[in-house]
Amino acid sequence: MLAQLGPANKPQDSPVAERLNLPREGKRVAVVIPLEGERTRSDQAFRDLRALVTDELAAVNDVILARMQSRVDLIPTLASHLIAAGGKRLRPMLTLAAARLCGYGGDRQVKLAACVEFIHTATLLHDDVVDASDLRRGNATANAIFGNEASVLVGDFLFSRAFQLMVEDGSLRVLAILSNASAVIAEGEVHQIITSNDTTTSEDAYLDVITAKTAALFAAACRISAVIAERPKAEEQALESFGRNLGIAFQLVDDALDYAASQAVLGKTVGDDFREGKITLPVLLAFRRGSAEERDFWKRTLETVEQGDSDLDRAQGLLVKHGAIADTIERARHYGAIAKDALGIFADSRVKRALVAIVDFCIERAH
Amino acid sequence: MLAQLGPANKPQDSPVAERLNLPREGKRVAVVIPLEGERTRSDQAFRDLRALVTDELAAVNDVILARMQSRVDLIPTLASHLIAAGGKRLRPMLTLAAARLCGYGGDRQVKLAACVEFIHTATLLHDDVVDASDLRRGNATANAIFGNEASVLVGDFLFSRAFQLMVEDGSLRVLAILSNASAVIAEGEVHQIITSNDTTTSEDAYLDVITAKTAALFAAACRISAVIAERPKAEEQALESFGRNLGIAFQLVDDALDYAASQAVLGKTVGDDFREGKITLPVLLAFRRGSAEERDFWKRTLETVEQGDSDLDRAQGLLVKHGAIADTIERARHYGAIAKDALGIFADSRVKRALVAIVDFCIERAH
Repeated sequence: MLAQLGPANKPQDSPVAERLNLPREGKRVAVVIPLEGERTRSDQAFRDLRALVTDELAAVNDVILARMQSRVDLIPTLASHLIAAGGKRLRPMLTLAAARLCGYGGDRQVKLAACVEFIHTATLLHDDVVDASDLRRGNATANAIFGNEASVLVGDFLFSRAFQLMVEDGSLRVLAILSNASAVIAEGEVHQIITSNDTTTSEDAYLDVITAKTAALFAAACRISAVIAERPKAEEQALESFGRNLGIAFQLVDDALDYAASQAVLGKTVGDDFREGKITLPVLLAFRRGSAEERDFWKRTLETVEQGDSDLDRAQGLLVKHGAIADTIERARHYGAIAKDALGIFADSRVKRALVAIVDFCIERAH
Repeated sequence: MLAQLGPANKPQDSPVAERLNLPREGKRVAVVIPLEGERTRSDQAFRDLRALVTDELAAVNDVILARMQSRVDLIPTLASHLIAAGGKRLRPMLTLAAARLCGYGGDRQVKLAACVEFIHTATLLHDDVVDASDLRRGNATANAIFGNEASVLVGDFLFSRAFQLMVEDGSLRVLAILSNASAVIAEGEVHQIITSNDTTTSEDAYLDVITAKTAALFAAACRISAVIAERPKAEEQALESFGRNLGIAFQLVDDALDYAASQAVLGKTVGDDFREGKITLPVLLAFRRGSAEERDFWKRTLETVEQGDSDLDRAQGLLVKHGAIADTIERARHYGAIAKDALGIFADSRVKRALVAIVDFCIERAH
């Protein structure tokens, strides 16, 4: 059975959530605000970008739906649980918008955008195994319902499907960009395991991790559109830089949101990173700015992962005290500014303005 | 740190096993007989094939070693644990031998054979997560040492590396064959989860699973050599059929060996499939041929997986009583015969005789 596809399913109302009778009580869950209901300027940016690519996005959803089918029923069941669960389709939208920015007139961006979403979804499935997180986007994660085995293997299936789509497209340059990105993502995720539970991780090492695990796919998603549009190297590099810096900003904000429950627009469980002892920038900053006693607190909770009921509250308090959330967002603004300037070589257009505005959307969703 | 690569490392002596101080006691482990020490006719077949492709195989090992490197140290450490752990390199040898059979004079088969081994290794890493098996090839599995997370992610890395190698080779037809095989493998593995713990699984469903999860890569490994040699469709199909049927025979024997400790030449833990409630042909046959009381035994041990100390012995006894091991091998001979006949369209040559003989090697290793 396939759940309804749509960019802004409210998880509480989703047929998947209902059917699977997902646990909702006893969890500290960030409030999920459907995008339709929001009225801020940055949300307007997201709606503007979506409106620009609405037809292609519908075509991407059709490709996704068609290509996640398998004679093994569990595959579409599990894949649809994640793919239909209210994802914003931000990455495929970037591919579509970048193609428009490059003046591309064909339809190859549709399959490639679906391919980008498949790679992203495969990564999420494997991430859930890794993180043992209970909730993603407000729904129970696939592995909590179907088991680690199925999450790993359906992830492999979607990853293979992504490559099949690329092969059908037929561009070896696109294949090179996305297979390189995939290798870099996996490297970044392994690197993240190593930095986990290590409070001495440097901000540079953290940046390496998020550049690889998150920004590489944003960069590739944008860059491939310049390739299919056969634009000059400078435009390909500009879109690569736009995607990479937007991706870094996006992950910085994500890591801030993981501690900022009241401000969150994510459906993730607040405090996931804390409970796993993941070392993210907010923690890095608070650790470096903290007293000896505070550092002992971080070492106990994040290195040996001995955590009591009130520890998440204390962690959040320390982050606020040291301005660590605000400064993480400030760092995000820095990368966002680079992303915006990267687009400088493109002539003014509605889609360019929408891409510039989406940078603010990715950062301001924290407020 | 990289362990020494070699096709016949004796696990007890391997630097990896020593370094990691792996558990050896209290496990029922099949005796691993190094290939060098064997003197039967079928082992001679393996040595003959390896001798034919010895130079290319050394080049494949060099590519594997070079391409599993990463600036994230854990990746080569974990990958080498599996890749160096005494694998026979059967699949890459098939690619190399098939290229020879097709009269191919170039060197593209080397990278592609490495790519086949990377896909196989990625599958093993993800399989270990799935199966929670303790031992593979006589060594503790990667996930038992490094954790599920690292196994999943290093598998993803090797899978991405395989695609990077294919992209470097530059053939979209090869890319299509191997990306299709990868999707089929993942489907087969998910299908296997569904048949697990279900004693009513039909022999046909079981065959579907092993054709997908094992034979698809054997088939692709052979077929791609006909593609790079630009041979006619008939030869490509013949090599595809040879690989597919050899792969089915190989998996049937593997599943027999999982219950046939005294005969085993594998380093796997004997009884792994039983402990996991995996439904393989030996069990299917014994269940269908058994009494009502015996079927209750299989349901208890494989469906609800309530197992006592003596249950594996009883299972092995029932398999022998009903000729289930012998008939599984007999089924393997059937597919082996199809594999041999598939090569009929090729002129007689030393490499053709070696490929025919390798079919017997894959089946007779059970004795």
